[in-house]
Amino acid sequence: MQTELSTTLGVEHAVFGFTPFPAVAAAITRAGGFGVLGAVRYTAPDELARDLDWMEAHTEGLPYGLDVVMPARKVEGVTEAEVEAMIPEGHRRYAARILAEHDVPPLPEGEVSGWRITGWMEEIARGQLDVAFDHPIKLLANALGSPPPDVVARAHDRGIRVAALAGSPRHARHHRDAGIDIVVAQGYEAGGHTGEIATMVLTPEVVAAVDPLPVLAAGGIGTGEQIAAGLALGAQGVWLGSLWLTTEEAELHSRRLTAKLLAAGPGDTVRSRALTGKPARQLRTAWTDAWDAADGPGTLPMPLQGLLVAEANSRIQRHEVEPLLGTPVGQIVGRMNSERSVQAVFDDLTRGFEKAVDRINRIAGRA
Amino acid sequence: MQTELSTTLGVEHAVFGFTPFPAVAAAITRAGGFGVLGAVRYTAPDELARDLDWMEAHTEGLPYGLDVVMPARKVEGVTEAEVEAMIPEGHRRYAARILAEHDVPPLPEGEVSGWRITGWMEEIARGQLDVAFDHPIKLLANALGSPPPDVVARAHDRGIRVAALAGSPRHARHHRDAGIDIVVAQGYEAGGHTGEIATMVLTPEVVAAVDPLPVLAAGGIGTGEQIAAGLALGAQGVWLGSLWLTTEEAELHSRRLTAKLLAAGPGDTVRSRALTGKPARQLRTAWTDAWDAADGPGTLPMPLQGLLVAEANSRIQRHEVEPLLGTPVGQIVGRMNSERSVQAVFDDLTRGFEKAVDRINRIAGRA
Repeated sequence: MQTELSTTLGVEHAVFGFTPFPAVAAAITRAGGFGVLGAVRYTAPDELARDLDWMEAHTEGLPYGLDVVMPARKVEGVTEAEVEAMIPEGHRRYAARILAEHDVPPLPEGEVSGWRITGWMEEIARGQLDVAFDHPIKLLANALGSPPPDVVARAHDRGIRVAALAGSPRHARHHRDAGIDIVVAQGYEAGGHTGEIATMVLTPEVVAAVDPLPVLAAGGIGTGEQIAAGLALGAQGVWLGSLWLTTEEAELHSRRLTAKLLAAGPGDTVRSRALTGKPARQLRTAWTDAWDAADGPGTLPMPLQGLLVAEANSRIQRHEVEPLLGTPVGQIVGRMNSERSVQAVFDDLTRGFEKAVDRINRIAGRA
Repeated sequence: MQTELSTTLGVEHAVFGFTPFPAVAAAITRAGGFGVLGAVRYTAPDELARDLDWMEAHTEGLPYGLDVVMPARKVEGVTEAEVEAMIPEGHRRYAARILAEHDVPPLPEGEVSGWRITGWMEEIARGQLDVAFDHPIKLLANALGSPPPDVVARAHDRGIRVAALAGSPRHARHHRDAGIDIVVAQGYEAGGHTGEIATMVLTPEVVAAVDPLPVLAAGGIGTGEQIAAGLALGAQGVWLGSLWLTTEEAELHSRRLTAKLLAAGPGDTVRSRALTGKPARQLRTAWTDAWDAADGPGTLPMPLQGLLVAEANSRIQRHEVEPLLGTPVGQIVGRMNSERSVQAVFDDLTRGFEKAVDRINRIAGRA
């Protein structure tokens, strides 16, 4: 699949794969797509540097990118401890009660929560950027809002294109005005943070809003026919995240979570504030149910909710407590039914795309 | 656009248009699509008979269908008055308070509420069916669940195909088991009653669930490129409802409502129980906000909510009280920006479809 954008970026297929796992991102790039490594789980810049070195060594000179989380609004001079102190006691007790009801053990002695809210703070994101700009990345994506002007300028100075996610035409126009090069239109059905507008409607709305900027369709895309649909809607490429979670190269660190993903149907996700404080689609679990319950305390705003649940999530994942075990994932989870290599998944995408094109041509009387 | 289904039904394009207005349905059929008249607003069988006679006289022998609302669960021997008595006094007072806050006058003396819950009751639907089976309809669609076995049998005896709407693969399998011929997969972004799964994901899930039954994609489809997307997803046709509301042939009876639809963006709808008691996508208004408010009494189950708000809706529409004025409509309302004839809209759909096919072929390297 070749579009103006994929040609410009030098990739064989206009398929962008977002993943927190370097082995998956590299395999997507090697398969002819554009791998994008999610940086949010890195708190130490040297770990990110090590993984970006590894990516460089395993992508045969082909292009790949990095996705950071850099909130547009700055929170100046606030420490994690100060943010932590803003969490109401009632919410702490509620989190503890859910864990107790499900007999979740504490973390083993000496083990600390792996997931830190700090990955979402600008200071950390800037440290990641310093590392990223030392590596030959071709794309810098930002998951929350438009990146600050100096970051866009630094990227452009290095010939790096900048992408940002949008859930509405208004967001998309904001990105365009901020000098963004590529808008990822992320629909309601997507995993992670999403708005209310579904991909089928959002994609052409965003294309019209930022024309002539290239748009990637995201949300609900996990097969070749869904890629064909996204491209028919005017996108210059597609952005897939969920699909890679059940590939052999993914390192989910929980067999039970993989099993849940493989068994889940399209109705087994929920758009909930339980994870970060902003609506994000994820597996529906006893954990999301508890936070979304009408008789619960409700969720806190970002970043408080993420900080509140960070340790709990680490404990749930460490001990693989099945009813509470979840992850951000989109509605296409219903089609993720076997563990296969990234290459095998990618081959299915391109084959499925060709079949969908055959089908559309038959319907159009051009076969 | 020709699929196996459109060929079987004898229509030029695999585009099904649902509308409560006979003039719109007939124009869709004359334009080469398949017009489907919604029957829910008819309470008197002779009015439906008159409009079906009119349809027959204005469709040049081309095929069209009827959509009824026939709940699968029977409510035996209950009168409207008895149902009305089940509505809590607090909910009545809340409805009255919203109307008072917006200075909505009563209906003029002698005028009665046009919208009756009775259109949703089986007795009325059966009266409509007796009329429908006396007319040369080619399709009978049911908007709520599978129609009863005797209705399916009566339709099949007359060579009439039966369609039913589904919001999940499970619903769709239920329809297949009930002998339904065509499943309409109605996604989250659609106007009217919808589930949580978006069209991009729902369509292929339903196609896989009921294969080899034909599936129509519904929800988020209002342009030729969205039609191409729906067909790429494996549908044998598309089902469009919202798009016709702003055609010249539509009889909305409120210029202010038409103006609201023309001005609305894709984020100006909400999936709310305010209208019928089941989640239905509609324009977001002060009315839906009041029923969805955390500090309100909440909505009642179907059919109580519909009965509760029937008179209020008539008053709001009669007096065109702008902040409260709404209608079921999908997220594509953002693209409904001018009043045109059905034929002009249809021409845009077919032209847009051809352009989308051109585009996909270029991307696939087949141009």
